[in-house]
Amino acid sequence: MSKSISPLAPKSYPTLPAIEGVRIATAEAGIRYKNRTDVLYVAFAKDTAVAGVFTRSKCPSAPVDWCRKNLGKGGARALVVNSGNANAFTGKKGSDAVKLTADFAAKAASCRASQVFIASTGVIGEPLDAMKFKGVLESCEKKAKPLAWVDAAKAIMTTDTFPKVATRTAMIGGVPVTINGIAKGAGMIAPDMATMLSFIFTDAPIAAPVLQALLKKGADKSFNCVTVDSDTSTSDTLLFFATGAAGKRGAPAITLPSDRRLKEFRQELEALLSDLAQQVARDGEGARKFVTVKITGASGAISAKRIAMSVANSPLVKTAVAGEDANWGRVVMAVGKAGEPAERDKLAIWFGDIRVAVKGARDPAYDESATTAYMRGQEITIRVDLGLGRGEATVWTCDLTKEYVEINGDYRS
Amino acid sequence: MSKSISPLAPKSYPTLPAIEGVRIATAEAGIRYKNRTDVLYVAFAKDTAVAGVFTRSKCPSAPVDWCRKNLGKGGARALVVNSGNANAFTGKKGSDAVKLTADFAAKAASCRASQVFIASTGVIGEPLDAMKFKGVLESCEKKAKPLAWVDAAKAIMTTDTFPKVATRTAMIGGVPVTINGIAKGAGMIAPDMATMLSFIFTDAPIAAPVLQALLKKGADKSFNCVTVDSDTSTSDTLLFFATGAAGKRGAPAITLPSDRRLKEFRQELEALLSDLAQQVARDGEGARKFVTVKITGASGAISAKRIAMSVANSPLVKTAVAGEDANWGRVVMAVGKAGEPAERDKLAIWFGDIRVAVKGARDPAYDESATTAYMRGQEITIRVDLGLGRGEATVWTCDLTKEYVEINGDYRS
Repeated sequence: MSKSISPLAPKSYPTLPAIEGVRIATAEAGIRYKNRTDVLYVAFAKDTAVAGVFTRSKCPSAPVDWCRKNLGKGGARALVVNSGNANAFTGKKGSDAVKLTADFAAKAASCRASQVFIASTGVIGEPLDAMKFKGVLESCEKKAKPLAWVDAAKAIMTTDTFPKVATRTAMIGGVPVTINGIAKGAGMIAPDMATMLSFIFTDAPIAAPVLQALLKKGADKSFNCVTVDSDTSTSDTLLFFATGAAGKRGAPAITLPSDRRLKEFRQELEALLSDLAQQVARDGEGARKFVTVKITGASGAISAKRIAMSVANSPLVKTAVAGEDANWGRVVMAVGKAGEPAERDKLAIWFGDIRVAVKGARDPAYDESATTAYMRGQEITIRVDLGLGRGEATVWTCDLTKEYVEINGDYRS
Repeated sequence: MSKSISPLAPKSYPTLPAIEGVRIATAEAGIRYKNRTDVLYVAFAKDTAVAGVFTRSKCPSAPVDWCRKNLGKGGARALVVNSGNANAFTGKKGSDAVKLTADFAAKAASCRASQVFIASTGVIGEPLDAMKFKGVLESCEKKAKPLAWVDAAKAIMTTDTFPKVATRTAMIGGVPVTINGIAKGAGMIAPDMATMLSFIFTDAPIAAPVLQALLKKGADKSFNCVTVDSDTSTSDTLLFFATGAAGKRGAPAITLPSDRRLKEFRQELEALLSDLAQQVARDGEGARKFVTVKITGASGAISAKRIAMSVANSPLVKTAVAGEDANWGRVVMAVGKAGEPAERDKLAIWFGDIRVAVKGARDPAYDESATTAYMRGQEITIRVDLGLGRGEATVWTCDLTKEYVEINGDYRS
């Protein structure tokens, strides 16, 4: 599906350590792609807690419905993810396919179907033939091993050009625990959601309600701050699994979100989520530049976020960045159209450290050549100060290039 | 600025008749472009009534501020429009430039500055040198003539590839009156506004408050139903001038919006506004296909409009149309992300007359080859029935092509 690797891809991948209680396998089920893996199977030890946040689409996929229904029941024993088909808008066939997939996985993992979590990504509206998983998941269960993290991230790619992985460690009660995460993104990436697909794993002994609280807050600061094209997927799924295996090494069981021993874990989790979210923007379809939009001085945090998203989603701002054009007039336009409090004569705008506009007009010291030189870089920061209050927000996006149009004009055909 | 004429351009232009009390001239003031007209001057007879609707941007241009301030004062005696520079986000320099322009025009037209209406379109943030209008407007006043409508439409173009004109006639109290209109569009075209720039002229004797009511309602059904790229301009201006000259031929003076003699006039005005609005979508930057999005069965009219705009603004829907791909899954996505009431299992989707999805899944009779053949056409209608209520909306847009990215990556440089 992908052509060449995004120039914004990380230069190297971190090595993800094993997480006790997590085993991974991938396979070729032939859902849609040829000669590549398209199924990820993850087996969890007993008593693995699970949390999840999902797309706010009013037309969610069948797997999203399934995961929502099974959160808060009996924890997780298996995760099955396929690429190539989103199993979205597939009606009863879609929910039947999810059920069948869960049954296959439950048999493989010797657990209940409700302990199987499922996600699908790819084309919308095509029936998913879950019979293709028959035998595949059992063979995955047999070969699953602790260290196949990059393979896992590769199996869930669609138009992604690089696998997205991240790892962090944190101390809980003096005991080190690990957090690993994988994600996929590329297109149909927009706010008000989890992300396209991301899965986070830890050996920390954290109860499901605490996990859910941590995940919700972390998603708001990370994946919900990313946009590639303003299009919110039907399938966005962010799942967080905690095996609790670090308890055997003395890590204390955490049962309250307010537990102070979570401080470092929360910080590291949020750093990991931001890392993955930014990787998604760095691999936005056709992306050539990574763009950070920072809003300060807004009337409030929600207002700041809306203005940031208005700038980050503006096709005219994004094409200007692609064209290496320091067109701050389009930033003004995007601030103005957000519908949030803004006073033209209090606005200031920076590209990187260069202030281009102040008090409602071009900065008297504006230097077009310095700005143009800055725009040639691969990492562009656009900052707007509204001069009204203390509301701040940061969101991440990428430029809008001809390749985006090419990729999406040809995706199905 | 433009490369080749949009394939969606009208095959021929209507001939616009004179409107008594309206005289037109264009000129080259050298604001930005070379070897083309960039100033439109329109002179109005005494007692010409004026109405206007403007961008809802929080950062409107200096000319928009000026027009808002002078509506409802002493009518209109002149209109000055320039292309090449939007005079937006130009601070005090911007309002000074507008005042100077109005002074030049007032001297030329022998009227008060507050009777001069002004609009500007082009780059944002560059100071506009109004001294370039010195002498130009007086010479325009001398040469202004009744029939230069296409010249008028040409002088206000930026990335437009064809001039946009329309004409209608209506009877008021048994007397025929004329409505002429011109518009410009291309990029930074989105809902919640008037349009980029459009000017409507009539000889009907209609009082300003009635004119305003007619215009507001007409804009909501026409220009506010068009989107090219979801980016709302700082400069959107729709002005409506009524010279009242038809009164001399016996047309009754209309002073109340509820006057029944307005029935045909209202119909023809709305038809003219829709005609111009659709021309704007047909000349969207890089447009190769004209797209009509029809929503039926929504929970209400506002909900229907929001869903229609969500579909029409979706980059993934628009690139699919550009790629001639009947990717109705992306339509589902766009319905789902709108945040409006929608039930997956009640949705039905048509491309043209071909129903592709029904009851939350692919239509059992779905014929990909027929749909693909339909997508090769130049006029694409996407219809979604939500099966919930009686809310309906129709909006117009165009496809998203590589040319859009090209035009907007190169616009300033």
